[in-house]
Amino acid sequence: MTYELHYWPTIQGRGEFIRLALEAAGASYIDIARGREDADQGVPALLRLLHDSATAQPPFAPPLLKDGSVVVGQTATILQYLAPTLKLVARSEQARTWTQQIQLTIADMVTEAHDTHHPVAAGLHYEEQKPEALRRAGEFCRHRIPKFLHWFENVLNRNPAGQRHLVGGRLSYVDLSLFQLVEGLRYAFPRATEDSLAKAPLVVQLHDRVAELPRVAAYLRSERRLPFNEQGIFRRYPELESL
Amino acid sequence: MTYELHYWPTIQGRGEFIRLALEAAGASYIDIARGREDADQGVPALLRLLHDSATAQPPFAPPLLKDGSVVVGQTATILQYLAPTLKLVARSEQARTWTQQIQLTIADMVTEAHDTHHPVAAGLHYEEQKPEALRRAGEFCRHRIPKFLHWFENVLNRNPAGQRHLVGGRLSYVDLSLFQLVEGLRYAFPRATEDSLAKAPLVVQLHDRVAELPRVAAYLRSERRLPFNEQGIFRRYPELESL
Repeated sequence: MTYELHYWPTIQGRGEFIRLALEAAGASYIDIARGREDADQGVPALLRLLHDSATAQPPFAPPLLKDGSVVVGQTATILQYLAPTLKLVARSEQARTWTQQIQLTIADMVTEAHDTHHPVAAGLHYEEQKPEALRRAGEFCRHRIPKFLHWFENVLNRNPAGQRHLVGGRLSYVDLSLFQLVEGLRYAFPRATEDSLAKAPLVVQLHDRVAELPRVAAYLRSERRLPFNEQGIFRRYPELESL
Repeated sequence: MTYELHYWPTIQGRGEFIRLALEAAGASYIDIARGREDADQGVPALLRLLHDSATAQPPFAPPLLKDGSVVVGQTATILQYLAPTLKLVARSEQARTWTQQIQLTIADMVTEAHDTHHPVAAGLHYEEQKPEALRRAGEFCRHRIPKFLHWFENVLNRNPAGQRHLVGGRLSYVDLSLFQLVEGLRYAFPRATEDSLAKAPLVVQLHDRVAELPRVAAYLRSERRLPFNEQGIFRRYPELESL
């Protein structure tokens, strides 16, 4: 079965958390919106799925995962849906609950990272909310990056199965998502992130191990991995880190 | 088994989504932080659980649910954990995935509602971010309330099992959460909310039916239901709706 990922074609964004899970598991998938329109792909195919008036389960926003006739939205829900099949989560219900709890905390930080450059409205340009962004980004760098990264370090430190993974003794989807979160924070706020990572060595080690997983490493070298840019969630606006 | 809910004792906040599920199901629970300190409850008990250095699964923030030795954080994860036992979710995996997708969209709107009065930082007072709040609240009222409520209406409208519930033919935890979301929006932004609800009759009907469920109605009349106030997520600052 080939999965269809429907996400904006020019950014990593929230879709990247899904791409990483699919890539790390070696799953077969099509990144639909990056395909050719004359092959029924591209952004029009994404918009058709998003606005499909015949579906009983209308999605709110990308990313969307299509698995046969099933369409799933919300990044954390997609990961939870995929993980058992991709073998990216433990078997026990309690471990799965803990994994999802961590994923939702990652999702909270992703939203806060986005809002550093869009503190007023996602529908306005960054340039229309720059004074507000300066304040929010300053608070994010001073208080939120340290707090979240300290928590992830703590989770790794206390894992009874060892400090190499967030949950249990093997790779799960939250390890991949934490890798991506660190990548994004380093891109957007390099100084503040390194300051906090200096006190979170287990997070850095996890990040580095994920980057070296053969399938992930191959993906990161490929053209399938989009570079960070200033249309995504993690954006480098140097003025936002100058406070 | 008596559940322990650990949440701030003076606000509805995110804890209210858990309280409503427990109340609607008639579950036995203690709202720990509202109990007496000399009975090992109160805010100190909440803080002990939050900062317990012995736990292998450190929580990030309240609400927390304690079920025997299991502690679960993140509102949507707590609901997902409770729902099968409380019979507040369908049995099929696909319905459960769809239910969680809806809950995470509700959670997104809750975060946006919070950020109308805290667009710069949760760690600062509202009075320290009022100009930013005026802009964010204006955008929220003009664009986000209509968009989200239209989506919930659409979900109800397309439910193949009927328009009385968000998922399937019986009550699930997302129905309770949507009730609470409507309550909060009406409190914080009465005019903008009524404008959008005028085009979302199924949402209004669902809200009203939930309010009349015998256990929910008894809860809403009781002292266990805290009133809305200006320390919670949904706050009435008239100036934020004057744009």
